[in-house]
Amino acid sequence: MNKPLPEQGLYAELKALLEERVTDSRGIREHHGKDESSLPYAPPDLVAFPRSTEEVRGLVNLCRRHRTPLIPFGAGTSVEGHVLAVRGGVCVDLSQMNNVLEVHSEDLDCTVEAGVTRKQLNEYLRDQGLFFPIDPGADATIGGMVSTRASGTNAVRYGTMRENTLSLKVVLADGRVIRTARRARKSAAGYDLTRLFVGAEGTLGVITEITLRLYGIPEAMSAATCAFPDVDHAVNTVIQTIQMGIPVARAEMLDALTMKAVNRYSKTSYREMPALFLEFHGSEAGVAEQARAVQTIAKDNGGMDFEWAVRPEDRSRLWAARHDAYFASLQLRPGSRAIATDVCVPISRLAECIHETAADVARASMPIPLFGHVGDGNFHLVILVNPEDPKDIEEARALNERLVMRALAMDGTCTGEHGIGLGKQKYLREELGEGVEVMRGIKAVLDPDNLLNPGKILPPPAA
Amino acid sequence: MNKPLPEQGLYAELKALLEERVTDSRGIREHHGKDESSLPYAPPDLVAFPRSTEEVRGLVNLCRRHRTPLIPFGAGTSVEGHVLAVRGGVCVDLSQMNNVLEVHSEDLDCTVEAGVTRKQLNEYLRDQGLFFPIDPGADATIGGMVSTRASGTNAVRYGTMRENTLSLKVVLADGRVIRTARRARKSAAGYDLTRLFVGAEGTLGVITEITLRLYGIPEAMSAATCAFPDVDHAVNTVIQTIQMGIPVARAEMLDALTMKAVNRYSKTSYREMPALFLEFHGSEAGVAEQARAVQTIAKDNGGMDFEWAVRPEDRSRLWAARHDAYFASLQLRPGSRAIATDVCVPISRLAECIHETAADVARASMPIPLFGHVGDGNFHLVILVNPEDPKDIEEARALNERLVMRALAMDGTCTGEHGIGLGKQKYLREELGEGVEVMRGIKAVLDPDNLLNPGKILPPPAA
Repeated sequence: MNKPLPEQGLYAELKALLEERVTDSRGIREHHGKDESSLPYAPPDLVAFPRSTEEVRGLVNLCRRHRTPLIPFGAGTSVEGHVLAVRGGVCVDLSQMNNVLEVHSEDLDCTVEAGVTRKQLNEYLRDQGLFFPIDPGADATIGGMVSTRASGTNAVRYGTMRENTLSLKVVLADGRVIRTARRARKSAAGYDLTRLFVGAEGTLGVITEITLRLYGIPEAMSAATCAFPDVDHAVNTVIQTIQMGIPVARAEMLDALTMKAVNRYSKTSYREMPALFLEFHGSEAGVAEQARAVQTIAKDNGGMDFEWAVRPEDRSRLWAARHDAYFASLQLRPGSRAIATDVCVPISRLAECIHETAADVARASMPIPLFGHVGDGNFHLVILVNPEDPKDIEEARALNERLVMRALAMDGTCTGEHGIGLGKQKYLREELGEGVEVMRGIKAVLDPDNLLNPGKILPPPAA
Repeated sequence: MNKPLPEQGLYAELKALLEERVTDSRGIREHHGKDESSLPYAPPDLVAFPRSTEEVRGLVNLCRRHRTPLIPFGAGTSVEGHVLAVRGGVCVDLSQMNNVLEVHSEDLDCTVEAGVTRKQLNEYLRDQGLFFPIDPGADATIGGMVSTRASGTNAVRYGTMRENTLSLKVVLADGRVIRTARRARKSAAGYDLTRLFVGAEGTLGVITEITLRLYGIPEAMSAATCAFPDVDHAVNTVIQTIQMGIPVARAEMLDALTMKAVNRYSKTSYREMPALFLEFHGSEAGVAEQARAVQTIAKDNGGMDFEWAVRPEDRSRLWAARHDAYFASLQLRPGSRAIATDVCVPISRLAECIHETAADVARASMPIPLFGHVGDGNFHLVILVNPEDPKDIEEARALNERLVMRALAMDGTCTGEHGIGLGKQKYLREELGEGVEVMRGIKAVLDPDNLLNPGKILPPPAA
């Protein structure tokens, strides 16, 4: 029997639902078949642009009837292949669901559609003296950030998407729409449905609305950079800061190679030595007190003078340089793609983990900048590979594997914030053992036909 | 066919496993068939006292083979009937699993067995300059606190058990033992298994070990009480404090009737007017700054002078008085039992919610103290009923129902911290609608024979 022509099948039905907002255009499909990883492209068969929860529900119902996979898509900034349509199907691009629905400034929360980006949200909130802190660098959508349990530079103080998501509206595989919690700050009402979908990478439902915690813009904020003679001393400064309970808002470490890349890319003139990028939030007096304490710790660890950035535009420039470190790194080897590692370990093991990893990096054949959110015990290698060279890919794979095994041996995780996607499935089993079978059971209950972002998170069943 | 004699069945097999640590003694069974609620006693058939995860696993395997329910039990301090053996079976008393297994002071975490109580843990930690903040009042076990997603007076600053549980060891219904996460501060590795068991009330597995976040004992702590002309002004003081981002560590409100009960019970001489009990944590300067700011807000709201408690023993006395408010309240009506309500609403609706509730309370036939964690939007009524008088019980039920419906209409929850247990099942459906069916699916996957604390959380299927 021939496959039905698109006009007679799912495509036609989707057109009836969404009119021009569904397409099989090759260019659009290709754009939706890749992310920021170096994994091979996998375009979907169709791309749909729903504008409401009701349309998402219609779309889910049609895909289910046609037993066609469906892949939620935000900004495409993930780095483990989360949005690749490895089994074809319909990409559900949520970027047209980009309304901020409600801001409750008195309650310090807001409700947004899944396609709102974090920069858009903060722009919207600024006049009300509020902000949403979670900052993975990329201008990701809030839906995407929920789905990968994103964190980033502010997590050391404000937590991750896990702590900052209050409630979700989700379209389930069977077309039911649920809201996972009320808007109260805390609740003990049954199983934690919100946390079930945070980090589920679109495999358990399509998130269409999110209620987030917000924070008042602090009375005072200041940022600083500080250079160190070596990575160990920079890391130890952060470890001691955390252990003293100083509520630092950001504590990022960049190694010398990353600083070199940053200078070239961002036209800055930082010392090309290991550096900390720090930020303090609080009252005027509180920020001054925190800064004094951290300066003392840094000095004891051989830190050079702090360079301060207090004016908003200077702070923005400093953090833009930090956030561009990934793209800056790519320029160290023209034509390269990056394989980014993402381990996170208990902070007492961090210096040792970075130290051992540095030895691997020193032996590698390609440039490998190292930087990360050391306040959380989380750091990244950006392994710059020639995507055409299988030897490079294999070297990167082996290096990542050694690093993951090292982190697991230290009771750490294979992924602090990027997620499992396609890239880390085999490590998930190493990390959680039989827990993976519990995940598989949950997946089977919520998505019995395996149509929601199939092929992600869960490794193939053990033989 | 006759029921097999105990010596031939499960009891005998449990004796082979646990020797004298399993019993059918009537006294012990009765002790394990009640909690702090006013629900009717429901003793288990047997009570077992395992001492290791391996013994719990053996016990779970035996119960499964005999298709006998099994109810995890900590300190019996829950208030919604969580531990009542409503379908008989084996009570698994975890109080003999009370070892602190590991403290990683550098990582600010520890791993404990489920039967460790929060006071025991804090006693253990004190010399290391660390503490575990979550404080529901009762000296509950950590396993029980995880299972009810407990919070209490410190949650406004430190979060609840949801935010402070890093990882769990759990015996599943099929006898598998999983660890839900590694010890890293954050992870994006698949579905959030830890949060799946936090708040599951023992219905998805038996938790045997818990890894918790810890905090350094703050450099400075001070507590204060402040009286107000009425409840509205006390509540508004807290709302404004939260909205200004002041990181108050505790912010408790007690109404005039509660203060009267406290004075009688704790031999204190507080003004018998609505009061706030506050605590500040931080550096010396930070605490002073917070205290100044809150004093200004309180004064603007008609607050009387602050009475300070800075010395540890004075702070302990102050918080003992607050924590005893529940037992103090019971003395207002000798022979009464308490039906405690537990709504939590967005803080912008809190004054209105308490105000409307006060009108109900004024019309009630029994004394009803009101107090709670107003910084979270969470408060309790302690409805003092004569347990022998069906009219009293019915009046309390109707009052609670009106309150729950009021909270739900304000986008709040029927339970901020006590859990669903037996008492709130019908409200769970009001609150989360189809979400309850998702919970039911998860329960069916993890406990297909419905042997783990059956009858709790999930309401009977809709007709």
